[in-house]
Amino acid sequence: MTMYIPTLSDVIDAHERIKPHIHRTPVLTSSFINSLAGAELYFKCENFQKAGAFKARGASNAVFGLSDKQAAKGVATHSSGNHGTCLSYAAGQRGIPCTVVMPRTAPQAKKDAVRGYGGKVVECEPSTSSREAVFAEVVAESGAEFVHPYNDPRVIAGQATCSKELIEQVDGLDAVIAPIGGGGMVSGTCLALSNLASHIAIYAAEPEQADDAYRSFKAGHIIADDAPDTVADGLKVPLKDLTWHFVKNHVTDILTASEEEIIDAMKLIWKRMKIVMEPSSAVPLATILKNKDLFAGKRVGVIVTGGNVDLDKLPWQ
Amino acid sequence: MTMYIPTLSDVIDAHERIKPHIHRTPVLTSSFINSLAGAELYFKCENFQKAGAFKARGASNAVFGLSDKQAAKGVATHSSGNHGTCLSYAAGQRGIPCTVVMPRTAPQAKKDAVRGYGGKVVECEPSTSSREAVFAEVVAESGAEFVHPYNDPRVIAGQATCSKELIEQVDGLDAVIAPIGGGGMVSGTCLALSNLASHIAIYAAEPEQADDAYRSFKAGHIIADDAPDTVADGLKVPLKDLTWHFVKNHVTDILTASEEEIIDAMKLIWKRMKIVMEPSSAVPLATILKNKDLFAGKRVGVIVTGGNVDLDKLPWQ
Repeated sequence: MTMYIPTLSDVIDAHERIKPHIHRTPVLTSSFINSLAGAELYFKCENFQKAGAFKARGASNAVFGLSDKQAAKGVATHSSGNHGTCLSYAAGQRGIPCTVVMPRTAPQAKKDAVRGYGGKVVECEPSTSSREAVFAEVVAESGAEFVHPYNDPRVIAGQATCSKELIEQVDGLDAVIAPIGGGGMVSGTCLALSNLASHIAIYAAEPEQADDAYRSFKAGHIIADDAPDTVADGLKVPLKDLTWHFVKNHVTDILTASEEEIIDAMKLIWKRMKIVMEPSSAVPLATILKNKDLFAGKRVGVIVTGGNVDLDKLPWQ
Repeated sequence: MTMYIPTLSDVIDAHERIKPHIHRTPVLTSSFINSLAGAELYFKCENFQKAGAFKARGASNAVFGLSDKQAAKGVATHSSGNHGTCLSYAAGQRGIPCTVVMPRTAPQAKKDAVRGYGGKVVECEPSTSSREAVFAEVVAESGAEFVHPYNDPRVIAGQATCSKELIEQVDGLDAVIAPIGGGGMVSGTCLALSNLASHIAIYAAEPEQADDAYRSFKAGHIIADDAPDTVADGLKVPLKDLTWHFVKNHVTDILTASEEEIIDAMKLIWKRMKIVMEPSSAVPLATILKNKDLFAGKRVGVIVTGGNVDLDKLPWQ
């Protein structure tokens, strides 16, 4: 199967297509955190995005790019994270069906979030084989369009609109850093910046305990983790061919942080910036604070990927 | 002693004076919360203000309005809340001394916050008599200017800049609601709106368990609570003559909420709006949700007063 690599014009089309359905999120700064880091950090706040995560961008681009005929059959995905919620949001905006296959063991809050936007949750057993079987059944019955959480050119073109906005909002950035799990946001960042501002260095930030992208990057081929465990639960998934293409070709380096560093960075942001964001979103700041030389005096864009966190189970408690 | 009532020109002067030292904070909205409330709510986010609270406005106005001669002797206050931190911030901006008298039993985080901006903490025993004695000594020794947390025309003129900004940022408001403790923010709101947009109704929101302003408003004279206890710890202090003047003359009504309603509203805002704010700041939304008829279909400004909360001791845990 030939892989379609999305282009700058896909990003521009995506931005026009999704503008009515997403927020142009604000960029926040903290003089306290700047003085700690010895750099100027510009936080692009996708935690304020519709449905609480940047994934509303890619999901909206996929949903609103469908023909009326395909759209009538709906969309489907398997995700117990933000992609499921965001696909449900986007489908609700278009008024079409959305089915999300999720392990029956997934948190109730995640199921409720999908349903809150009008989507349907179909439960599977917590295994890859069950998920694939149940998902195949859903698609066979409904004819729904599969929207992969990240390994999909429509999704990556949608995520790319985030960095496109960021460079419209902040002049003279030297670098942009984003967390990496499956690589959707980082691929979008690569797609936007390599075309629009190729002098900006792109860093990916990853938990040490789920460092498959780091090891893949060093090895030169995709390595998947075996059951990684990290507080940054949005970052456990592996790279796939399309995201690997962007990471391999456009990322300057991948930096990692320990669980404690991630939690400390998260708490620091909550405390000083007064924003609620996910553990995954704290990984970039954690890596900046442990690599100060690399960023000293630089103007750095930091993608805050999402704000959907269980307020009853905060990681420092 | 004749009471000086600040005027519109004091507010305009204050705004010019403090602009270099404060943020023009953003106004956020949530379609989910709007649909719950049946109204359009515009949250003025003073949790993003310098030092994490609206009190940076009044403190900055007092500090930057001093003559050079007085400023050289510094400023002083007694406050274990945001006013102490914000006065320390403002004094640090001007490069003058600041002393905050605080009970030795005050939370370590509050002492650290004052010191973090360069202020000096002087401890007293946790009693009014000790506080007054220690404070008198500080002022006698240093000649520092006393800046009261709210019963001070300079402070009220400074707080008034918040609602002045809000009506510049949002057109056509029908009402503005703010929490009430000592009444500094509400008085500032009254001062700004009675002069600039007198058709806007002004509501104050108060915890049931510290409802001295509510009872004062109904009785027609100041009634102080006897040791009130509420999760909204910024709202335990009583009205004073200057704030009572504004409340009595310009407030449409005072609404109250239970502890549970306040905590639920706080958690709702954190969860849906992804912002960190204090329990005190949740009281307005709590009262809106229990008085839906009053606000149905209206455009309502909601002052989010501050974001300084102990992340290790959240009230829903």
